[in-house]
Formats: sequence, C-alpha cells, structure tokens
Amino acid sequence: MTGRNTNPSGEDSLIARYFKSLATDPGAFGLTDDAALLKAHEQDLVVTTDAIVEGVHFLCDDPPDTIARKALRVNLSDLASKGATPAGFVLTLALRTVEDSWLAPFARGLGEDAVRFDCPLLGGDTVSTPGPVMISVTAFGRVPGGKMIHRHGAGPGDRLVVTGTIGDATLGLDILKGRAAGAALGGDTAAMDSLVERYRVPQPRTALSQAVRDYASAAMDVSDGLAGDLAKLCTASGVTAVVDVPSIPLSRPVASLLASGAVGIDALVSGGDDYEILCAIPENQFDAFIDAASVAGVGVSQIGTIVAGTSAPKFLDAQGRDIPLQRLSHSHF
Amino acid sequence: MTGRNTNPSGEDSLIARYFKSLATDPGAFGLTDDAALLKAHEQDLVVTTDAIVEGVHFLCDDPPDTIARKALRVNLSDLASKGATPAGFVLTLALRTVEDSWLAPFARGLGEDAVRFDCPLLGGDTVSTPGPVMISVTAFGRVPGGKMIHRHGAGPGDRLVVTGTIGDATLGLDILKGRAAGAALGGDTAAMDSLVERYRVPQPRTALSQAVRDYASAAMDVSDGLAGDLAKLCTASGVTAVVDVPSIPLSRPVASLLASGAVGIDALVSGGDDYEILCAIPENQFDAFIDAASVAGVGVSQIGTIVAGTSAPKFLDAQGRDIPLQRLSHSHF
Repeated sequence: MTGRNTNPSGEDSLIARYFKSLATDPGAFGLTDDAALLKAHEQDLVVTTDAIVEGVHFLCDDPPDTIARKALRVNLSDLASKGATPAGFVLTLALRTVEDSWLAPFARGLGEDAVRFDCPLLGGDTVSTPGPVMISVTAFGRVPGGKMIHRHGAGPGDRLVVTGTIGDATLGLDILKGRAAGAALGGDTAAMDSLVERYRVPQPRTALSQAVRDYASAAMDVSDGLAGDLAKLCTASGVTAVVDVPSIPLSRPVASLLASGAVGIDALVSGGDDYEILCAIPENQFDAFIDAASVAGVGVSQIGTIVAGTSAPKFLDAQGRDIPLQRLSHSHF
Repeated sequence: MTGRNTNPSGEDSLIARYFKSLATDPGAFGLTDDAALLKAHEQDLVVTTDAIVEGVHFLCDDPPDTIARKALRVNLSDLASKGATPAGFVLTLALRTVEDSWLAPFARGLGEDAVRFDCPLLGGDTVSTPGPVMISVTAFGRVPGGKMIHRHGAGPGDRLVVTGTIGDATLGLDILKGRAAGAALGGDTAAMDSLVERYRVPQPRTALSQAVRDYASAAMDVSDGLAGDLAKLCTASGVTAVVDVPSIPLSRPVASLLASGAVGIDALVSGGDDYEILCAIPENQFDAFIDAASVAGVGVSQIGTIVAGTSAPKFLDAQGRDIPLQRLSHSHF
C-alpha cells in the first residue's frame, strides 16, 4: 500500500492493532469487512446482549483485562443458562482515549477468554465518548432446533438448583468500595481477594450448558440477585418456589461473614453479579442432571422446590420460618 | 401477580413499558427471556454492529425519535451494502435518567422504523450511565448461502456506483453547529432543513440490497467519507479507481454551495454520515443493475471506474486533472 491508503482512519488501525488476532472465525473476515457472517449449521442461534459501564458495572481502576473478561463473561453466562454453546460475539467499545496501557491488557484478556470459551470475536465498533468507558457485547450461541431453555417451563415438584456459590461478588464490590462487610474479614487478604475476583471476573457456567439443555425445565442466570431472579423465573413459569435458605451454597468467607452477623442473608440473595445458573430440574431427571454436572465439573446445589401458586417465592430458615426480605434485586435505575 | 412479584426491577418495567411492542418476532419472546432466538432459515446470517454517542454521532438536542432512527438505520445501511435482507436487531441503551419525555418518542421512532424496514427488536439491555447517552445496535440480515457481498471482489473495468447524493449530511451537521457553510444558504430554510434531516435521519438503501447481492462485485456503505471509504474498498479488492468528480451526485443545495465556493469538494467527499452504498458493478451486469435499481426506486450514479493498480484512487475534475484531497475520511479518534 502506498500513498493515501497508508493512512487509515484511527478506528481501522485501532481494530487491526488490538483486536484482529481475536477474530479467528472465518466469518469475521479478519475484521476487514463491514459485517460478519454467522452460520447456523442447521441449529438455532441464541442471541444475548449485555453492556457494562465504568463506575456502574466495573470500577475505573479495575485491571483492564478483568473488565474485558467481565464484558464477555456476563454474556456467556446468559448463553449457558439457555443451554447454548458459544459461537462468537461482537463488541462495541466506547473509549475516551486510545491508550496502549489500557487497550493492550484489555485485548489480551478478551483474547484469552475468547479462546478459553471457544467464542471468537466476529466484529465490532469502536466509538469515541467524552463519558465513562462502556463495553457492549452481543454474543451468539447455538442450540439444536427448538432446544433453547427458557425462563418459563418450570413445573410444581421440580427441584430448584443453583450453581457455584451466591453472594461472593456483592461482597467483593463492598470490599472495593471500603464498606463494613469488607472490614469484617480483618486481615484475611486471601478471602478478600477471592471475593473481589468474583466481582471482577464472573465464572460463566459454560461447561454446564449441555446439562441445562438436556435436563432443565427452565433456567436463567443470576445476575441481579438470587431472590429477584427467582421471582422472575417463577412469574414466567406461572409457579412459585420454596427456598431452604441454609441450603443456599456459600463460599467459606461469605459463610463466616454471615455467621458473624457482618452481613445479612438479605444482602446475599439480593446482591448482583453472581452470574450463576438458576434452574428447575424435574424430579425424574435430577439424578441424571447431577451426574452430568459432576462430569462437567460444575458444582450444583439444590436450594428448594418449585411449587404451585403465584405468590412470591418463600425463603425459609432452618426451622422452616419465613424470612422476610427487604429487597429482591439489585437495580441500576 | 401479587406480593413481591409486583415490584419488578426498574429495567424490567422500562423494557416492558417502552419496547415490548417492538418485539414482534416470535424469537424475541416478548422481551421476557434472557436471550432471543434467531433462525437462519437455511440462509447465512450477516451481523453488523454500530453505536452512536451523544455529542459525537448525534447532538443532545436532536429529537429523540431521530436519534432512535439513526441508531437503527446506520446498521441497516451496513446490511444493505452487504446484500442482506433485515432480520432483526438487539439494542443496548445507556441512559443517564429514565424520562418519559425522551423515551416515549425514542421508542416510537424506533418502532416505526422497525416496521418500515421489517427489522423487529429481538432483545436488549438498558444500563445506567453518568455520561452521554449511547445507543448500540447489533443488526442481523439474511443472505442465501455464500451470497454476502464484501469489500473485496472489485475488478478492473467494473463501474463504480454510488446511491443517492453525497455531502448532504456533513453540511447538515455544519448547519446544526452554526458553521459558515450553513450561513451561505442564507434564508433558504427548506434547503437547510433537508440537509439537517439527512444528518439526523440516514436513508438506508435497504430497497437496493437484492440488486447489490445480484450484481455487485464489491460493496460497502459510505459512512466515514466517500474518498476514504473508496480507498478501503480498493485496498480490500487489490485495485484502485478513477473518480470523475463532476459525476458525484449532489443534491440541489449542496451543488449550489459547491458552485458558490462556500464549500469545497474536499469537505463533501471526506465528510461522514452519508450512509449511501458504494459498489462496483461488472460491465456486463451494469444494465441489469440499473434496471433493478430503477425497480427498487433507488437513485444510483456511476461516478467512475475500477482500474488495476494499488495507488490511491484518483479524483479528476471536468478537464481530467487530478484533484488533490487534503483528507479522505472523518475519524472520531
């Protein structure tokens, strides 16, 4: 290339420099075209879109590679909860400035996760903004025709299951913001680091997607708080649920903070950013689901049961007493 | 619904209130699930994503319905240039506040365009931001297998064609910003309004998508300036081009501003926001393409010829003299 062609626009050179190596799918055309090609391979395509904003979903001094990972992973979490296998994603990046010290680790983290979750970059747009950094991802997954799992479909008697542990991320955010819950951990920096890591880098349960597809009657990911998200699943399914609160899986530091009274169960079940899968498993599928989860290496816990009715889900303590919750969800508005 | 279920999160109620009526495709599930379903119908899916930011791509006092239309239409323009028929879109909306006076006309404009271009809302995300409003759209189109049109593929001898008129939008922005070019139109408010409208509400050439698919060897949409975008198409195709500048289609007000010297040709061919289609048509397909464009009701103009070589495209005046261009593109970085 000679002459004026050697002076591409800032956006073109930014994409080529940082993101071209992530575009491993032939349908991405090396990010040199105006659009990408997505082949369905005779399957249904599941589409999800989630954005994260500086100061709202991540903090301005979070490491750039963790910001990139979170932007992709919150979408991978949605795909997994729908039973879908990742197929690729497109990225919109709104930046104030183009700084190598931020973009290089951002692109590296994104690229590592694209490989780890077999979800290549298909295309994107970079725009200039005078405001906070924002990363919007639209991710695609594939399911065999008609096999996407919905919020609706849960029936009375189904067992209510959640992956991983609940409440870590919201306490991780508390620690980053210097709130009391963090101080209660005293000098246990390993515990504090593990909670902060859960806030910054969600663990999408992609490995469980096939088990969800094969066995769940309904599923969604827990992103705005277990209580509120359960209420949504129940509403969509026309049922309600009874949750045995002592069965809610907690990590060691979260369990100790709860035991000491430094945090209440309310905060844990209404806090955001868990990115675990909540699903209903019919009784006669439960053993097979547990076996599949074990093979997938994803921890799952039964936390209650789906029951008939349209009232709000009940949260019961060890003595079977109703625990009133002050709030159900985290909301940005 | 009773009890706690009647208190959905702010985001859920915002989506239900403003956007549910736009989600007419069965794969959108009425915006009540975590993801949408996109069926390929044995075709290839074309994916494009473009975002617009307040103060960068639109002005904060632009009417909300025009902002919505622009956000969708810049993506529809990409799809049309790839020969794709619209299939749907997902929306990410970053807002400072939830105000009915802004959201109601925004949703109305978006809904009208979704119907007009047969491109239903499939899903979305609304996030809170302390910064400028940003709208990110990922749009999907369908093409028969292997029929997507690329930037590459243009060959020597192909005729270079552009739709509509060039330069209106960049002068519309000048007018909104109170720059000299606007003043030169004097009291011709109809002309000024037409240019402002072209800036605010692009006219995606969706009607031409099939003709592009059937006849173009290469195509892209002109969004960052005709000169720069032509250079990109030529680079991707391994060719160059000769443009006959007097053949570049201009609207009446733009032609009069150029004739009076109030604007230079540089500004017109390097200004952004045209959202016209630039394509190369093989000589033996040209008549059929012109006929198809006529049937589609989209004005098209031959502005030059693709030629062998790798130097920058030449822009020639009426006497065949090279017009040196100071810049080729509009860039936000």
